[in-house]
Amino acid sequence: MSLTLAQIASLVDGQLVASGELEITGAATLAAARPGEITLCDNPKLAPELARTQAAAVIVPHGLETNMPSVAVADVHAAFAKVVGQFRPQKAPRPVGIHPQAVVSLSARIGEGTQVHPLAVIGDNVEIGPGCTIHCGVRIGDGCRLGQGVTLFPNVVLYQSAVIGNRVLIHANAVIGAYGFGYTLVGGQHKLSAQLGYVEIEDDVEIGACATIDRGTYGPTIIGAGTKIDNHVMIAHNCRIGRHNLICSQAGVAGSSTTGDYVVIAGQVGVRDHVHIGERAMLGAQCGVMNDVPAGQRVLGSPAIDEKDQYRIFAASFKLPEMRKELHKLQREVQRLEAIDVARRLAEGIEIDPQQDAA
Amino acid sequence: MSLTLAQIASLVDGQLVASGELEITGAATLAAARPGEITLCDNPKLAPELARTQAAAVIVPHGLETNMPSVAVADVHAAFAKVVGQFRPQKAPRPVGIHPQAVVSLSARIGEGTQVHPLAVIGDNVEIGPGCTIHCGVRIGDGCRLGQGVTLFPNVVLYQSAVIGNRVLIHANAVIGAYGFGYTLVGGQHKLSAQLGYVEIEDDVEIGACATIDRGTYGPTIIGAGTKIDNHVMIAHNCRIGRHNLICSQAGVAGSSTTGDYVVIAGQVGVRDHVHIGERAMLGAQCGVMNDVPAGQRVLGSPAIDEKDQYRIFAASFKLPEMRKELHKLQREVQRLEAIDVARRLAEGIEIDPQQDAA
Amino acid sequence: MSLTLAQIASLVDGQLVASGELEITGAATLAAARPGEITLCDNPKLAPELARTQAAAVIVPHGLETNMPSVAVADVHAAFAKVVGQFRPQKAPRPVGIHPQAVVSLSARIGEGTQVHPLAVIGDNVEIGPGCTIHCGVRIGDGCRLGQGVTLFPNVVLYQSAVIGNRVLIHANAVIGAYGFGYTLVGGQHKLSAQLGYVEIEDDVEIGACATIDRGTYGPTIIGAGTKIDNHVMIAHNCRIGRHNLICSQAGVAGSSTTGDYVVIAGQVGVRDHVHIGERAMLGAQCGVMNDVPAGQRVLGSPAIDEKDQYRIFAASFKLPEMRKELHKLQREVQRLEAIDVARRLAEGIEIDPQQDAA
Repeated sequence: MSLTLAQIASLVDGQLVASGELEITGAATLAAARPGEITLCDNPKLAPELARTQAAAVIVPHGLETNMPSVAVADVHAAFAKVVGQFRPQKAPRPVGIHPQAVVSLSARIGEGTQVHPLAVIGDNVEIGPGCTIHCGVRIGDGCRLGQGVTLFPNVVLYQSAVIGNRVLIHANAVIGAYGFGYTLVGGQHKLSAQLGYVEIEDDVEIGACATIDRGTYGPTIIGAGTKIDNHVMIAHNCRIGRHNLICSQAGVAGSSTTGDYVVIAGQVGVRDHVHIGERAMLGAQCGVMNDVPAGQRVLGSPAIDEKDQYRIFAASFKLPEMRKELHKLQREVQRLEAIDVARRLAEGIEIDPQQDAA
Repeated sequence: MSLTLAQIASLVDGQLVASGELEITGAATLAAARPGEITLCDNPKLAPELARTQAAAVIVPHGLETNMPSVAVADVHAAFAKVVGQFRPQKAPRPVGIHPQAVVSLSARIGEGTQVHPLAVIGDNVEIGPGCTIHCGVRIGDGCRLGQGVTLFPNVVLYQSAVIGNRVLIHANAVIGAYGFGYTLVGGQHKLSAQLGYVEIEDDVEIGACATIDRGTYGPTIIGAGTKIDNHVMIAHNCRIGRHNLICSQAGVAGSSTTGDYVVIAGQVGVRDHVHIGERAMLGAQCGVMNDVPAGQRVLGSPAIDEKDQYRIFAASFKLPEMRKELHKLQREVQRLEAIDVARRLAEGIEIDPQQDAA
Repeated sequence: MSLTLAQIASLVDGQLVASGELEITGAATLAAARPGEITLCDNPKLAPELARTQAAAVIVPHGLETNMPSVAVADVHAAFAKVVGQFRPQKAPRPVGIHPQAVVSLSARIGEGTQVHPLAVIGDNVEIGPGCTIHCGVRIGDGCRLGQGVTLFPNVVLYQSAVIGNRVLIHANAVIGAYGFGYTLVGGQHKLSAQLGYVEIEDDVEIGACATIDRGTYGPTIIGAGTKIDNHVMIAHNCRIGRHNLICSQAGVAGSSTTGDYVVIAGQVGVRDHVHIGERAMLGAQCGVMNDVPAGQRVLGSPAIDEKDQYRIFAASFKLPEMRKELHKLQREVQRLEAIDVARRLAEGIEIDPQQDAA
């Protein structure tokens, strides 16, 4: 299929700076676009990439100048998404109702319009609100409660008694409610702690593929409303994650730690158990947090300290081998000065007090 | 529901220090407890949290003093677990026998009392002992052998020929027996090594959600009896993990490495291939182990070294920017002293030997 | 069962250095072999392990000398694999055709000889080439296209529109095509970016258990031909991974980053977003890459720098506590020399210029 550039400008309500006759055959990013396609450029800094692109036209924000045929809009990403949608229409999964090959307990209550795909398993006394999508292979344990508009992608596992808020979205193979990793050594054997708690996920949370959130020991592990969690993240037992956190891939938060609202945890960060991360704190990539972090602080490094201090240490570290040479040079120079001093004093007949010299 | 404090004291065989009439409506941890609920406090250090709790009563160890209504017991956690169980009874999954919607090979042999939930798949020549629970969506490859009392949570995958001991517990979406990551470059292509081995998991091992244990090249990858493995842990091909290890979340052990008994591996640790970790060694969080670790040693850092040495290096690192300034100040001072020395010798008419000065 | 050593030598076309009558009862690695078994030794450096093995015989490369009964061959691993295959025959999974308990859309097209195991789910308009194996519990979203000879192990999830090349192998519980982790803060809420892209995996790629590869924002996330990816690896949205890369366990590559061909990424490495890793670069274990890496460079550390520089810094770091002591000693010595100088000048009646002294 193809669209004229004029049709595209009209579709996105944009300002056409070129001939509207230009035929556009697809939409792709700067690096990926082929001749005939339209691309996007959201930032003047991308000028070099824009100069190199093979695209035939570009969607830009108002005010970004280019010699290429362009369509200027207020929101580049929203406009480009519309155009991509024309060339590669996204299909919502076919409505299946409660598919006959799903395994649904007779005691489960399922809301209106909720789709349950084949080979999903829904346990006893589960409650699911309206407008949810439960994809194939999902396992929902006994007594779970889901709000409305929830999406569980294939093979998500909810252990029993999980509480899931409205509009929560959980990606494939994530596991909610496995046992907490708590053991006491008794007679040479590691004895598992109580596993009487559950997981509570508040509204508008999104959880990545293969992420795991363990149940609390006696009560809930809580993920606050609006928080977004990336793939492979581990949230341990009894944690209370605040609202609107961003927790990037492969980060881990150990048992009973808590975060305030709008905390950002970068990739591969580790947070030890029983600490508190204050609101709007930022934990830099790969850092290891061993203590409470005050609200608003940015930390970095393992062990993590204030980001600015850590940058200074990194900078000094890069000079370390040189510092070591300088130190040794200085030692030789001082030894020489001391030797000269001793020689001078001997020549002058001044008595040398070894006691004082040693001091 | 509610219980009187006297009923609770009787339930846990505890010593009541308050009016037994007090009505208790729930049980929750210090931070989570609401008015009317009972909580627990296992340590005098938690006094500030205890002072702030909204709970109406508390379970404490004998000897811990508090002004709150309390029940004193020998084992706080065991007692509290009992009370939580009254307010939020845990339900064992409904017995299903071998569910008709499970897919079980005719050549599989399954022990008495073992539960096979719907949509589990059990391959050819599999042997499963008595009293096991195979949850929905579990995949057990051909030729696997499981002992008694094994629990496999939903969507666990056992590749062919895995050997699983008694009372082993494997959490959802863990994968046992995928191919080892071993390649040889042949003609510009990475050629996969032999994948003829399997995984052997001894008695009483517990394995977390989304953990992976790869098969050996020619023989077994072994997890020793009583070892506990947390979520997202990676144990590579040919490893031999000792008994009663604790391996925390997101740690990885590369190919052919081995550990003694009672080793502790903290979160996000990486252990390189072909090293040995001696018994009771402790690998600190996020450390990177590049060499053998002797029995009993505690290591830290990346690359990992003795924990005490590493603490000294961390402490010195924090002073690095300051050290750098001190070093530069010292350089200027020594230059000044040298200049004075040269001036003095010139004034005294002493010949200056540049050779010696340069030394 | 047992084989004579002569039979084994004949099987692997090897040179027998021992009595051919010797009865061999199994095959295992040096450390694991029991009396009566045959083992392998591919390297003269393993002489101490060879001396300690309980094995009755050994397969060695031509030229490696040993006193044990041996069979010398050109390719030790190929030969040993053959022998292991005799003692523990590997069984290909039983052909199932398209199993009646698989859930296959009427609009899916499936190639000749492709096996679809029970409880796999294949969506609308999916195309699968000939000779593939789709294991139980696999979920293939609408519109996916698979080449020939593809193997998807149990519970793999492909989101819609994934494109999978020939001979690709994906291990259990890996997730291909989940949403990219891209958010914009709008009115205090994190708003998800567009998710209109897909994942494209080229020929001969292998992907480990529980690995995740997120879809592109508008177009593909690409894994180049011949690249091998280990368990728990995270490849974020819009990445373009080159050909014949090796990406080890628990490594993560953030959004829109790219790699050249033959890049090696070691375990637990983190690569930030929007950087390029040049061809044949090597990223050392646990390193954190914050900038582009030139072709062929080896980097190490977090933040990652040139490996040789980093080794120098590590070496100097180990001396840091000592350096700090040396620095303080030097400070005291210089102070003493300065005090002597001042005293001397006072004694000599030289006026002291504090200005100059402070300099």
